[in-house]
Amino acid sequence: MTPEDFAPDVLEEAAAAAETARASDSLDEENTLKRDFVRKVRALLDAGEDDQVYDLVEPLHPADIADLFELLDADERPLLAEAITDLMGSEVFAELNDHVRELLVESLPAGEVADIAEQLDTDDAVAMLEDLDHEDQQAVLAEMEPEDRAAIETALSYPEESAGRLMSRDFVAVPEHMTVGDLIDFLREGSDLANEFWEVFIVDARHHPLGTCQLSWILRCPRSIALTDVMKRDQTLIPVDMDQEEVALRFQKYALISAAVVDGDGRLVGQITVDDVVHIIQEEAGEDVLLLSGAGDGDINEPIRMTIRTRLAWLVVNLGTAILASSVVGLFQGAIGRFALLAVLMPIVSGMGGNAGTQTLAVVVRALATNQLTSSNTWRMIGREFRIAMANGLALGVLIGLGVGLVFGNAHLGMVIAAAMLINNLMAGLAGILVPVTLDRLKVDPAVSSAVFVTTMTDTTGFFSFLGLAVLTGLA
Amino acid sequence: MTPEDFAPDVLEEAAAAAETARASDSLDEENTLKRDFVRKVRALLDAGEDDQVYDLVEPLHPADIADLFELLDADERPLLAEAITDLMGSEVFAELNDHVRELLVESLPAGEVADIAEQLDTDDAVAMLEDLDHEDQQAVLAEMEPEDRAAIETALSYPEESAGRLMSRDFVAVPEHMTVGDLIDFLREGSDLANEFWEVFIVDARHHPLGTCQLSWILRCPRSIALTDVMKRDQTLIPVDMDQEEVALRFQKYALISAAVVDGDGRLVGQITVDDVVHIIQEEAGEDVLLLSGAGDGDINEPIRMTIRTRLAWLVVNLGTAILASSVVGLFQGAIGRFALLAVLMPIVSGMGGNAGTQTLAVVVRALATNQLTSSNTWRMIGREFRIAMANGLALGVLIGLGVGLVFGNAHLGMVIAAAMLINNLMAGLAGILVPVTLDRLKVDPAVSSAVFVTTMTDTTGFFSFLGLAVLTGLA
Repeated sequence: MTPEDFAPDVLEEAAAAAETARASDSLDEENTLKRDFVRKVRALLDAGEDDQVYDLVEPLHPADIADLFELLDADERPLLAEAITDLMGSEVFAELNDHVRELLVESLPAGEVADIAEQLDTDDAVAMLEDLDHEDQQAVLAEMEPEDRAAIETALSYPEESAGRLMSRDFVAVPEHMTVGDLIDFLREGSDLANEFWEVFIVDARHHPLGTCQLSWILRCPRSIALTDVMKRDQTLIPVDMDQEEVALRFQKYALISAAVVDGDGRLVGQITVDDVVHIIQEEAGEDVLLLSGAGDGDINEPIRMTIRTRLAWLVVNLGTAILASSVVGLFQGAIGRFALLAVLMPIVSGMGGNAGTQTLAVVVRALATNQLTSSNTWRMIGREFRIAMANGLALGVLIGLGVGLVFGNAHLGMVIAAAMLINNLMAGLAGILVPVTLDRLKVDPAVSSAVFVTTMTDTTGFFSFLGLAVLTGLA
Repeated sequence: MTPEDFAPDVLEEAAAAAETARASDSLDEENTLKRDFVRKVRALLDAGEDDQVYDLVEPLHPADIADLFELLDADERPLLAEAITDLMGSEVFAELNDHVRELLVESLPAGEVADIAEQLDTDDAVAMLEDLDHEDQQAVLAEMEPEDRAAIETALSYPEESAGRLMSRDFVAVPEHMTVGDLIDFLREGSDLANEFWEVFIVDARHHPLGTCQLSWILRCPRSIALTDVMKRDQTLIPVDMDQEEVALRFQKYALISAAVVDGDGRLVGQITVDDVVHIIQEEAGEDVLLLSGAGDGDINEPIRMTIRTRLAWLVVNLGTAILASSVVGLFQGAIGRFALLAVLMPIVSGMGGNAGTQTLAVVVRALATNQLTSSNTWRMIGREFRIAMANGLALGVLIGLGVGLVFGNAHLGMVIAAAMLINNLMAGLAGILVPVTLDRLKVDPAVSSAVFVTTMTDTTGFFSFLGLAVLTGLA
């Protein structure tokens, strides 16, 4: 047997990798494409010099080609796709931003999309097809090989953002009676195996996973040993309908490289590998800041109309709460008319409450998202936030109280603003933890709606405590 | 040769894993420890029933034992450590929160800490020792084997949060002249190899990495093939002083499982594996919301004094900006005295600007952090944010303008607030992108200080535009 007869995929792949020249000339110190490089591509696309564009782009890693598409303007992207058709392999599509991919996919005929999808892992093919119109999706599926089509249709039947959409069906599973030697022979002879795998799953006769075996163990154990003696009995089976955020948390918690996905009957139906989870970990951890600020998923490649709609919806809700808070001020119009300085100082009290509330909210939302805050330590955390709010409320109250008292020569005013500052800080600390914890118990994502409630509370409490105390103590 | 002679580590490990009973009784549906379980541990600790505590905790995964420590109150943690000394293996320490680990480590004698550190991978041992006082650190190092000590001292010589601190020195590297068969024999015979590895590095005579070989390729290639023919020529060498955030971005971008770390001379000095990077990806992506809100690193296990200090520092800076904004209102005291309704409505204009600014800020900070916003597309993004601000400013202006005009029967007032709302939204959109982009160019983390600038701008612009237009148009 010559090397050429054997595992040709592996050799081809290696040769291709070896050929890929280091493309560092086009990358800056942050490993993003240089501005000059992008400019040059742009100029050549404008001039219709497709061959030169091809030569420039050819040495790039697929991930960098995907970045290049995202950096170009929307109308330049199809031009680039035409210029580098040969390079538009499945890896590039797998790396593309969803919105950019959708536009490119829509500009291609169904047959071509089907060809690309067939080369992709199931999870990447699903990502490519799941956002298409039902009609376009059917057209593409109709062009695919029955086996690939079935795999994608099954994956699409699972809920969005579930393990079923994320998993790959390319994995290696072997029966429990095998020895290490049997497994090595199987791997060396099998021709239709997954391209890349890190662990082998051992299954029983009903295809239920019993354990996993790292390749490094297999390489280091005597051939005669039974797999069931070296395998690790798997602690982390992923149900096929598990939400991807939960999947990501398991991978993190148990430092997994790959994990078995099982259906409702406990049968092994797929595997998820850590490289598919890494971008979810990043997205899920990064989305809290976007959700808390009401910026939707904050994707800069999203069509601008969608972005405007998402952000406006949030702003209109906030307008409602701002009007509510201002109606509290309205109750004290008379006092403000008599003593306008109150209007000058009141935004300080409400604003500082907002700042303190946002601090607590950010900490609590992250602690909930990372499962650090659970029912076992909620009370301790509430106590902790109360003490922080008390300490900072006192400090800020003394600071602003002294300042106002001295600057305006009005000790009474100083005491009123100091007291209001303390009250509003306490409100901020308590609302900052109680609101997200309550929403979480009600199975509502605390990142999505907590901020509205908390700022409403700190705004109204800020105005009411400061203006109310002023009137109550006869200041105005 | 019997199985017992061979690779005893592997077998022992597997047996241990097989013994670990599934601990699902103690976990809830979110895979966190049940409240009842934590309560029971607590009660038994109080009662001094250490044996029963041990029996309860023993089936848990090390990651769950670490979680248990974090869920207990600070004064209960040393009690638990005493009750389960045998179970306090290196894995538990590796999983512990930094602050919790520091306290536990400080309560142990140097010799015991040294024993634990010697069992850990270099990167975990470094994480355990790097936060100790210099004196305590030296005491522990003095108790360690010279080889382990040298490894840790070298790691500690690299900057904090750099690849050098993150990397492990346990990796498999082989010379370039080997064939697949040589490598397999080497792996099967080598006794002092890393416990877990996924790829093998191929190096030249000067120990410069030439490429990597996945274990699955080795298992599937004929023995006679030269490694240099199957290896992938590595595109992603990590310099030992690279910041961990950059490291995480590379792993994500190129979907790496492991990567070679090289020193200044290009020599292979360590490897970073994806499981060490996953928690960094999560931390770095999640920290933006904490930094933007001024909550420091938002660690709920941090000593409360540190938390108070961090948050108060931020609040005092914000107090300064709030006073600045209120001084703008002070310019218009006369007008407010004559027409107190201005004071009622002005917080709406400033607050809505703050909300819109926060939206843009969140999107831009994330886009910068994920390298999606680079110098190549900054202008397009500025244009995009301007169009969004214009659209939403017009919509909100019309809405509030009509509302105010109708409710108060004052068209003039309605037009003033509508115009102010539009102006402040444009300020919010532009400040929301220009401030973080400028800070990023100046190599300042935009998440840390952008929010102060942006809210100062939207507060002052909100007050100034609304009150200024009111006075300028003769409303008050």
